[in-house]
Amino acid sequence: MAGDALLRLARLNAAYADAIDSDRLEEWPGFFVEACRYVITTAENHRAGLAAGLVWADSRAMLDDRVAALRRANIFERQCYRHILGLPLLRGEADGVATAETPFLVVRTMRDGRMDLFAAGRYLDRVLLAEAPLFVERIAVCDNTRFDTLLALPL
Amino acid sequence: MAGDALLRLARLNAAYADAIDSDRLEEWPGFFVEACRYVITTAENHRAGLAAGLVWADSRAMLDDRVAALRRANIFERQCYRHILGLPLLRGEADGVATAETPFLVVRTMRDGRMDLFAAGRYLDRVLLAEAPLFVERIAVCDNTRFDTLLALPL
Amino acid sequence: MAGDALLRLARLNAAYADAIDSDRLEEWPGFFVEACRYVITTAENHRAGLAAGLVWADSRAMLDDRVAALRRANIFERQCYRHILGLPLLRGEADGVATAETPFLVVRTMRDGRMDLFAAGRYLDRVLLAEAPLFVERIAVCDNTRFDTLLALPL
Repeated sequence: MAGDALLRLARLNAAYADAIDSDRLEEWPGFFVEACRYVITTAENHRAGLAAGLVWADSRAMLDDRVAALRRANIFERQCYRHILGLPLLRGEADGVATAETPFLVVRTMRDGRMDLFAAGRYLDRVLLAEAPLFVERIAVCDNTRFDTLLALPL
Repeated sequence: MAGDALLRLARLNAAYADAIDSDRLEEWPGFFVEACRYVITTAENHRAGLAAGLVWADSRAMLDDRVAALRRANIFERQCYRHILGLPLLRGEADGVATAETPFLVVRTMRDGRMDLFAAGRYLDRVLLAEAPLFVERIAVCDNTRFDTLLALPL
Repeated sequence: MAGDALLRLARLNAAYADAIDSDRLEEWPGFFVEACRYVITTAENHRAGLAAGLVWADSRAMLDDRVAALRRANIFERQCYRHILGLPLLRGEADGVATAETPFLVVRTMRDGRMDLFAAGRYLDRVLLAEAPLFVERIAVCDNTRFDTLLALPL
């Protein structure tokens, strides 16, 4: 069962990353429950107990809005991400909700072909282990505290 | 079964990457069926439906030739790759052939110790799920559209 | 059983990386048996059969000493690592000890937010497959032969 939950979390993560990296952003909110929490923060802020983060949403509708805004405005320089994820660490499971941590690395490629390390860190997740698992909470805690451009796409 | 197929694909990928990264290039064609297709292309060309790519082969013999040429000529600067792969996304399975996508990141180390991000992208694969699985088709779609040197080793 | 051993090794690796990356260094020696061997070396030295390496320990007590020294001295610039690991390649298993290789990539983030590729390579491991698996031997073979700063944290 632990091995099974691990593979289900790993598959969820792989599908999540693929939706973002393949520019199917409209699918991204569908990885969350309606009353979800999604935060991008830094290790420093997270240690200090600051809840707000660089990006913050507490419903799937806010994630939909964010995607719509990205599509409408499109003010950011064309770029794509490539998430490379580690194996989830399963911290616990209660009432059908798993608590897990997953390391991530995001490489960004700009339209002209330049490629750089964009972000590294770990996801702190609570996942509803339904037939199709969904994120109840995903906090992306970034090791790096500076971003050299507008944090545009979801992590 | 899905979990089992996933692990078999992940193991195949790990062995494939190790053969290249450990400079056992002669083993590389052995990961493909005889009548295989191997392509390295860019996301841009792939979206445009261009089949040719930067590197193109439609038989295992062509892969053998490529390795022999690399060993003979040896004109490229000494370098090694390190593939870091994500979990495969299993897209389907029919007639014993799995369709899958796997994200990759390749870090290159030059002889003098310089290390850089060389390529990021995803493999689009069709895999014969035999006792020892083999690639029927592997298309390496790179996010980055420029390479700062001759694309020498296989991805 | 092979799939099971693979997942156990992958989980061990994930927990190992997390202890280092989350600055819980005191837990790091606990991933090894008492009479362990831990080495950081380069691909060049490893090929040449040089056993010493950049870092070398042959007991868990030496690993404890290393952590204590790191905590006391704290002379190195504040930094954190993020390990991104590939799937282990299981090379064999005898008398409850698995032989495996695992590719790694380590991204380093400095206190001011600078992020760089710090190390890439592969672990050569011998793992005691106990209830909680432990490293009998871990040799971190780095592709890169230069480090631009004191090699401080464990790989």
